Amino acid sequence: MIKKFKLTHGFTPLVKLKYTINDCNIFMKRDDLLDFYFGGNKVRLYEYIISEIQRQKAEKIITFGSIYSNHVRVTAAVAAYLKMECDIIILKERNNEEQNPDGNNLLTSLYNIVKHDCYTDEANEYIDKFLEIQAQRKVKFFFVPGGGHLPIAALGYMDCLSEIQKQCNDIRLDVDVIFTPTGTGTTQAGLLYGKKAFNFKGDIVGVTVARDVERCVHEITKLTDNMNKEFKTNYVSNENDVKVLEKYIGYGQIDDQIITLMKSLAMSDGILLDPIYNAKSFIVMEKEIKKRNYKNVIYINTGGTPNIFTEAVKRKVL
Amino acid sequence: MIKKFKLTHGFTPLVKLKYTINDCNIFMKRDDLLDFYFGGNKVRLYEYIISEIQRQKAEKIITFGSIYSNHVRVTAAVAAYLKMECDIIILKERNNEEQNPDGNNLLTSLYNIVKHDCYTDEANEYIDKFLEIQAQRKVKFFFVPGGGHLPIAALGYMDCLSEIQKQCNDIRLDVDVIFTPTGTGTTQAGLLYGKKAFNFKGDIVGVTVARDVERCVHEITKLTDNMNKEFKTNYVSNENDVKVLEKYIGYGQIDDQIITLMKSLAMSDGILLDPIYNAKSFIVMEKEIKKRNYKNVIYINTGGTPNIFTEAVKRKVL
Repeated sequence: MIKKFKLTHGFTPLVKLKYTINDCNIFMKRDDLLDFYFGGNKVRLYEYIISEIQRQKAEKIITFGSIYSNHVRVTAAVAAYLKMECDIIILKERNNEEQNPDGNNLLTSLYNIVKHDCYTDEANEYIDKFLEIQAQRKVKFFFVPGGGHLPIAALGYMDCLSEIQKQCNDIRLDVDVIFTPTGTGTTQAGLLYGKKAFNFKGDIVGVTVARDVERCVHEITKLTDNMNKEFKTNYVSNENDVKVLEKYIGYGQIDDQIITLMKSLAMSDGILLDPIYNAKSFIVMEKEIKKRNYKNVIYINTGGTPNIFTEAVKRKVL
Repeated sequence: MIKKFKLTHGFTPLVKLKYTINDCNIFMKRDDLLDFYFGGNKVRLYEYIISEIQRQKAEKIITFGSIYSNHVRVTAAVAAYLKMECDIIILKERNNEEQNPDGNNLLTSLYNIVKHDCYTDEANEYIDKFLEIQAQRKVKFFFVPGGGHLPIAALGYMDCLSEIQKQCNDIRLDVDVIFTPTGTGTTQAGLLYGKKAFNFKGDIVGVTVARDVERCVHEITKLTDNMNKEFKTNYVSNENDVKVLEKYIGYGQIDDQIITLMKSLAMSDGILLDPIYNAKSFIVMEKEIKKRNYKNVIYINTGGTPNIFTEAVKRKVL
């Protein structure tokens, strides 16, 4: 049994939306409300990563991500919570130097982390070199891959699936599909692993927000393979089990349809999706629901609400 | 029995903070996590106001508040949720025309409400005239006073006290005091009313964030009096029952100590207080705890996290 470090208190709500698509009911799993530093899926991942950090008696957390990354925000908060040092390599696009001090960037700035800037196209070399130097200096560090993409981290979403199953049983709900935004694929891998572990009837479908579908399927399968190895199970066997839908628009891009969707859900349900992960994958889910004959689906709101308070959104809204 | 309109799902967590003051344990009631449009205390107030709006079959909500008001944000979301029209009178200071499209202002802008600008010193006349015209036009409106200051609204915090009592019983916690920020006093009035209704042992202490102490005590007593009349009870009898501590700094002002406190709690607990209501009343609570020999206190986090994402905070942090 793998130990979990509790960062949060209680289940997140599973809410039936007033917003419907054709005759399909949409239930939203409100992981945006997880009660640790503005919540979101990264908090569940860290509840398991921390147990490994503590087992290894590491003294510093090292990770990387973009300046607006939810993973970077939660990493900074976790390091402070554990009274650990924290080095974060911030990836920048060469053609886009704009870094406004808002959203996740503002929240991360409240912590005493050490930031190192690096261009995306030099990231691999930079990170390798950086970790090498730390090792030479005998720093006892724990390196968290981008997005928290580790087999142990995905167990956070095995737990989420168990929560969902209990909540569905409570209201006697048969779910056709659980939809989730997919970045590095850790969340989807955890849900898939949980589906098998708890024999959950509904499908798990991801909507990629950055990488192409093939890469997502490959990475998710690799992660569930590694989970099987690490936890001595045999749950997800091949790439055919992993369903990922094509992205709506490039990562970081925000168009009028995204703002319209954000407004619609704010109007109908008083829920505001973040534009980077959730609003755009929700749009793809809508199309999928219209194509098929679903009765009840669950959408995982993976959080990232700080990304609403950014220049990019303001420019579109006002 | 007064009917309640459910906007939210489930209890908000009562969390024991790692942050302590002398030897006093601090528990935080996380009403910032209420699951309707960025939550906060105004959501609980509206759960009762809505029942009255519906009883009266009103077709339009009219209210007023500053551009960064939590009450204005939640009013806009509630009106959309109920598919009602909404007119909001936005109060401006004469010497401070700055209105950045951030925080609550950004969130309110997503709704199709009608905004009317008015200077604070002309507010009373403006509002009277405005309502008179609406009445002449036979508009079926419901007027919500600033902050939601209505006897029925305060029942939301009677319910919150009942939640707290249950949560305390579950962990066998004896509470010396419940602290809350106090603006118009609706939240504190509700807690006081609940204390009497459920025979809760702990004290209720407010920290004013705007008005002077005397005015707060007077308004809160008046509201609990009106609750007694309206609900045929006799719970809070006189001003001696109402405890309010002096404010830390003027409403809307943010100084370095506020930012320092926000950082400290973010470091220790992964919780970020809003600067306008919570961080500053938390500072006053700290001083009070140091003066007295409290063992366990509860602090009500009344929300307002959107106010973290504003120019005023950015200027101080970065």
